[in-house]
Amino acid sequence: MLNQQCIFGQATPGGYGALAIIRISGADCFEKLSKVFSFADTNQHWETIESHKVYYGHLKDHSGLIDEALCSIFKAPKSYTKENSAELSIHGSPYIAARLSMALIDAGMTQAQPGEFTMRAFLNGRFDLSQAEAVADIIASHSDASHAMAMKQFRGEFSSRIENLRVKLIDFTALIELELDFSDEDVEFADRSKLLELIEEIVTEISNLRQSFARGNVIKQGIPVTITGRPNAGKSTLLNLLLRDDKALVSEIPGTTRDALEDIISIEGISFRFIDTAGLRDTDDIIENMGIERTLKMVERADIILYIADMTQISAENIQDDIRELNTSVKDFDKKKLIIIGNKTDLLQEIPHGFRQIMEYDIVFISAKRRENIELLENMLKQTVDQNNIQDGFVISNTRHYEALLFSEQALQRVIHGLNSNLTQDLLTADLRDALHHLGTITGKITNDEILDSVFRNFCIGK
Amino acid sequence: MLNQQCIFGQATPGGYGALAIIRISGADCFEKLSKVFSFADTNQHWETIESHKVYYGHLKDHSGLIDEALCSIFKAPKSYTKENSAELSIHGSPYIAARLSMALIDAGMTQAQPGEFTMRAFLNGRFDLSQAEAVADIIASHSDASHAMAMKQFRGEFSSRIENLRVKLIDFTALIELELDFSDEDVEFADRSKLLELIEEIVTEISNLRQSFARGNVIKQGIPVTITGRPNAGKSTLLNLLLRDDKALVSEIPGTTRDALEDIISIEGISFRFIDTAGLRDTDDIIENMGIERTLKMVERADIILYIADMTQISAENIQDDIRELNTSVKDFDKKKLIIIGNKTDLLQEIPHGFRQIMEYDIVFISAKRRENIELLENMLKQTVDQNNIQDGFVISNTRHYEALLFSEQALQRVIHGLNSNLTQDLLTADLRDALHHLGTITGKITNDEILDSVFRNFCIGK
Repeated sequence: MLNQQCIFGQATPGGYGALAIIRISGADCFEKLSKVFSFADTNQHWETIESHKVYYGHLKDHSGLIDEALCSIFKAPKSYTKENSAELSIHGSPYIAARLSMALIDAGMTQAQPGEFTMRAFLNGRFDLSQAEAVADIIASHSDASHAMAMKQFRGEFSSRIENLRVKLIDFTALIELELDFSDEDVEFADRSKLLELIEEIVTEISNLRQSFARGNVIKQGIPVTITGRPNAGKSTLLNLLLRDDKALVSEIPGTTRDALEDIISIEGISFRFIDTAGLRDTDDIIENMGIERTLKMVERADIILYIADMTQISAENIQDDIRELNTSVKDFDKKKLIIIGNKTDLLQEIPHGFRQIMEYDIVFISAKRRENIELLENMLKQTVDQNNIQDGFVISNTRHYEALLFSEQALQRVIHGLNSNLTQDLLTADLRDALHHLGTITGKITNDEILDSVFRNFCIGK
Repeated sequence: MLNQQCIFGQATPGGYGALAIIRISGADCFEKLSKVFSFADTNQHWETIESHKVYYGHLKDHSGLIDEALCSIFKAPKSYTKENSAELSIHGSPYIAARLSMALIDAGMTQAQPGEFTMRAFLNGRFDLSQAEAVADIIASHSDASHAMAMKQFRGEFSSRIENLRVKLIDFTALIELELDFSDEDVEFADRSKLLELIEEIVTEISNLRQSFARGNVIKQGIPVTITGRPNAGKSTLLNLLLRDDKALVSEIPGTTRDALEDIISIEGISFRFIDTAGLRDTDDIIENMGIERTLKMVERADIILYIADMTQISAENIQDDIRELNTSVKDFDKKKLIIIGNKTDLLQEIPHGFRQIMEYDIVFISAKRRENIELLENMLKQTVDQNNIQDGFVISNTRHYEALLFSEQALQRVIHGLNSNLTQDLLTADLRDALHHLGTITGKITNDEILDSVFRNFCIGK
């Protein structure tokens, strides 16, 4: 049904630019496109267009020329959607894009829904659901680690892991049916423990994968960091220093927007995301502005806390007081990483008494004003992350996958419990089927509108 | 020299999207690209690539896979720049774009300067300078009229007008040399008046073209409109109503950003640009905020003034006072179009005394709150513009062209003066050469670094 319609969507970000790409897909897309696009070469006809060729021509509507354009042809099944497709490369003008959109609608096409191109690619078997999800992750990736993770998933590494688990589970189901058929006869009772062993292996594998989510999420979102400290300690200066340091390189490369990467820094491939810094960009008095409650919540959401102190204003004892207060007010404070930053070395002859060692915490002395020791601080940030933990093995980063793995694991735990309590085969296989179902939703072997909607609603149009 | 380098640039706007296009141009671009891009089809080699074909493959750098991508090949001279060129279609991720940029630099390419692709197209004879300038105008166009004007220029209509003028002038120069050679002999004195007639014809044509600039500029920039009135008259509500009305349609079409079109509305193909409305978006008290001086300047820059009054608060006499004050303080007030808007009809049983006729000005009664009569106001806005004036004939919109036409016209006026005062041939031809020079700079028959710089510095990268 869905695939009957010819859809179009702008695949490049809105706004002004040299070029914009309008993507078109649908069985009859060439026929419909012929009402709007005409070849500059009058000897060229739509009957003889070839796949993967680029044609120069004109886009016209009822009131005249819209633009000169390049049209790339992709014939089914050799296209992203596996349908007949075309890409129009037009001048990057919002006006032209809007006028072309209206002309395409007049020609009988429909505006694509978010993610509809990728959804069609999935439905037409180009890739499975977890690979489709990886497309969105690739686009959103902001560091070496998050990019590598999305690429792995896109290239099917995760899918094949899940498929392996499914095959094992299907084999196991066959085995259990066989074994349990004979179990009444009391011939091979030892096999029940063998079955247990087998399923525990599978559960461990699923569980490991599921538990990689916390790590995967950190890679995908960036490690949450917060900057705290008393008023005028230098919080906003430090934030701007850290952000600018990282953005300077990136924003020199045109087409990369600073905005898009706002409040994320990447240190040797690891992303750190500064949380709730909106107020901190312009003023140092965020704590006063937001009140103590919100400040504590902000600290609660962080994995790393940077506590900055103006050493010309407060003593080491003051800092210890502040930290003790955080310790009592912030949930799970002891699980977080705290780095103390002694600021304004530029105004001091020497580090004041008591600052060299404040409880068991790491401390670094900087001058935000003179940009001194900022690199040292960045290194300390980097060292908070267990590199091996992040870069080895496969990690999941998608909440939907996490849930599916969890439900599957829970069903298999019920199978284990059933085996231990001699449950009948039909009850066991109901749980097994449940586990298989949830694994199947990950790659889309099993799917429904609700799953598709949750996967594709966050895509952009034209993808 | 310039064309020796292989350049690259992102041709699509920055930020996240389904796709981004990286454009590459230069004689050795395929050789350099082969270090970064490899064909998915291992039977495909760089030696056998064909122009206007799209190849699927992988982008890699020293640390691994950057992205899967489509690569479109354009072989010289059948490309935008007339050089060997390629376009990489990658996932629309700022991270991927930045990493690919670094890989291309490592492969020996250089980041393109703004407009460098179009400058190469010009230098390689793809089109003339005024056509190159039209590319930027096409991208910036925001209404039917500005788009049609830019398209005309891009397709060479303006260039051929200028070329015709140049040819006429060259013919005239030949004629004047011939006639003046004989003038000493007093044989055909009548011909001097014939010469005068000829050159006056040319001057009139140049002058008309030059004078179309005001009109062209209005089409290109939009007609400047300002909203004024006492505090809480409903200025910001009216602005938002007018802007939203127009944007609703456009912003439904994804990929068209409201931001980009901010403060411009288009009524049946004519653009109106609201000036200095930054403060007006959120508050009605802009006049208080900016002070009377800036308010008067704002009104001075507008061609159309919308004066809005809360009819429940002020009398027709108050309005007359305000207008008299504007009349005395604002330069050229009488050349501007004033529309008086009586607001808040929703709170009134009938239009208060004296409002039906306030001096000689147009007046419209609206309810901004209930959106009543907004369309009527839009019609009044539209009628302020002489349609024929805008849509007929050819208009220029480029300051550089205006200057060149002006200098050319001035030189020809000196020729006329010289003819009248029997100046010698060599002095006349110096002025003629001057006029020809300035006409030549328009299409780029005559060019230098300064002209090129002024043309291309406002282009975006990747264009």
